[in-house]
Amino acid sequence: MTDDPPLNPALLPAGFVDVLPPAAEAEADGLESLMRVFAAHGYDRVSPPLLEFEETLLTGSGAAVAEQTFRVMDPDTRRMMALRPDMTPQIARIAATRLARRPRPLRLSYAGACVMMGSPSRETDRQILQAGIELIGPDTPVADAEIVALGAEGLKVLGVPNVSFDLTMPPLTTALLAGGTFTPATRSALLRALDRKDAAAVARYGGALAPILTELLYAAGPARRALEVLSRVSLPPAARAQSDRLAATVATIEERVPGIRLTVDPVEFRGWQYHTGVCVTVYALGRQEELGRGGRYRSNDDEPACGLTLRPDTILRVAPPRESRTRVFVPWGTEPEVAQDLRTQGYATVAALGEMAIPVAEAQRLGCAFIVSRGKLKPVRNVGKID
Amino acid sequence: MTDDPPLNPALLPAGFVDVLPPAAEAEADGLESLMRVFAAHGYDRVSPPLLEFEETLLTGSGAAVAEQTFRVMDPDTRRMMALRPDMTPQIARIAATRLARRPRPLRLSYAGACVMMGSPSRETDRQILQAGIELIGPDTPVADAEIVALGAEGLKVLGVPNVSFDLTMPPLTTALLAGGTFTPATRSALLRALDRKDAAAVARYGGALAPILTELLYAAGPARRALEVLSRVSLPPAARAQSDRLAATVATIEERVPGIRLTVDPVEFRGWQYHTGVCVTVYALGRQEELGRGGRYRSNDDEPACGLTLRPDTILRVAPPRESRTRVFVPWGTEPEVAQDLRTQGYATVAALGEMAIPVAEAQRLGCAFIVSRGKLKPVRNVGKID
Repeated sequence: MTDDPPLNPALLPAGFVDVLPPAAEAEADGLESLMRVFAAHGYDRVSPPLLEFEETLLTGSGAAVAEQTFRVMDPDTRRMMALRPDMTPQIARIAATRLARRPRPLRLSYAGACVMMGSPSRETDRQILQAGIELIGPDTPVADAEIVALGAEGLKVLGVPNVSFDLTMPPLTTALLAGGTFTPATRSALLRALDRKDAAAVARYGGALAPILTELLYAAGPARRALEVLSRVSLPPAARAQSDRLAATVATIEERVPGIRLTVDPVEFRGWQYHTGVCVTVYALGRQEELGRGGRYRSNDDEPACGLTLRPDTILRVAPPRESRTRVFVPWGTEPEVAQDLRTQGYATVAALGEMAIPVAEAQRLGCAFIVSRGKLKPVRNVGKID
Repeated sequence: MTDDPPLNPALLPAGFVDVLPPAAEAEADGLESLMRVFAAHGYDRVSPPLLEFEETLLTGSGAAVAEQTFRVMDPDTRRMMALRPDMTPQIARIAATRLARRPRPLRLSYAGACVMMGSPSRETDRQILQAGIELIGPDTPVADAEIVALGAEGLKVLGVPNVSFDLTMPPLTTALLAGGTFTPATRSALLRALDRKDAAAVARYGGALAPILTELLYAAGPARRALEVLSRVSLPPAARAQSDRLAATVATIEERVPGIRLTVDPVEFRGWQYHTGVCVTVYALGRQEELGRGGRYRSNDDEPACGLTLRPDTILRVAPPRESRTRVFVPWGTEPEVAQDLRTQGYATVAALGEMAIPVAEAQRLGCAFIVSRGKLKPVRNVGKID
């Protein structure tokens, strides 16, 4: 066995990063801004732990990410613990256990870091930040709309421009296909074709449903147009019910958030394994990265729930940069009240730690925009030489 | 092999907890209040990842907690990664690598969760929250005092009463013992005696130093009295230098934070493995739990540094409870602007998700203190029935 060469001490595992100034403060402030929006709408914050027993974390809605989860052994019980790849199963657990007796609708919010294994071939973050809400109890378009509206409000507070909310209704496809008669092989070929948006393959495997499925495939786009197509194609009753619910949700969202950009993809279902109703993916136009996602599902104990998880780290790459505090150099011997007063006004004071020959040179070296001189602020030239 | 019985889904591994409303919001707000104090004094926030290669995380000052650290394998590089039990080694790493070229003094702040293995016999938290600062570059009493003063300001902002800052000077004991002639066995017996504050054993193993050590042992207490004893005992030059530095730091802290409660234990050294100067432990009087700890050490690349790590979770068990947002029930059909205005005023609005027969009953059921009625707030009786 040979020793590994010593690591460069600055090297981090792929997908893990040091967030440096000023991004780290911007990220924390952005996250808390989102949480304040949620709190103002009566969403109570819960904070589950980073690790849980894998049995409780990776069951139910957590099963979908089990393969992406780091595990360690609890030396106490010798049971395996999992490092959470997602907080939503934890919120569902809390709602069904410790908060089972709180009145419904139960509105919960949460924020924290999650860790997933990732794959070496894809350059993805392995530690991500989540900030989200869950609305547990009601199963109505108004509840769906509240979740989307709060997401929109949070992104607006952070100044994110050109946000699009892309809606899907995964059970609609299921209900549609239940109306056809397919062999298992044809059914799975058809699902694969829909997933890839391969119109030729949809025509080939769709049988009697091919014309409808093809039309719905092409209907993906602005919500009104998609709903118009859905309203005039012939659907079996179960699929019609899903379509009506989707239309009601869209109408409620548009009423609540005038001008919101909504799209609908009627036959999209990929990535929504455990969802039972309207789902949403949030994008900034022109960007590939998701800003968030959510949807309707059955929580533990089969309770109706819908939620939205935003990604503050991704959002802040899209949001306009925030103003950092202006730095003021405070020379040795300045009255403490002067510096205190500046901090109250929102400045960051950088205190001299001793007498300096040329305080303004030190102010400049430390990247301060101002220096306190005789109790007043004096600008410092050549600011911004800090690397 | 038999199957384990199914776990109670509410069960978490020992030492891990769900933080519920209203504690989770109080904790997050308290943490951000501390970070705002640090930012106002020019401490720039950095946010290192939860996991690093164990080689980079557990060297230097990180070695002290290596045995308490959970590890997982990075499937990408097949190297071991460690889940951080402490953030301070990460800050030292960042200062010495990515921020090596930033001008000194370098002031950094950080906040986040840490995880340690714990021991089954002791009922301790295994996930803790840290919020701290590091002042890298200078090695002066003024730098030491800034760290303590910022800790005091942070705790004051959170309203924590009766805080005591307990100072120690671990290298003083080392310097003192270097002045005696001890066999290795006697020396370690003497250290053990000092550690346990066993005056009889100190007298037995202390040799010529026994009278001084005994006097210093009994001198532990209010800073002025301890320093008075230190000033009049006879110390070898190296120990006298440490004692003078301690006295200068105490004087600087007292000047900067009038009325601060400082104690000094001159021969305490336990738990300060890598410290090279004044160390501090922060307590709330009458409580056993530490609110924070810090001190002077050599950072990576042997750079002088001092820091303080506060424990927001512990602090908030001692701080006065904060006011939660007042909850207002907003009946179906209320103008959106009315609810928006209430949120701007700091209320949490709880929206009805549909028409209700008796809205005030719903308001009461959901724990709202007020209900909106004809655009105005009306108090709801029997508030607080929420569990």
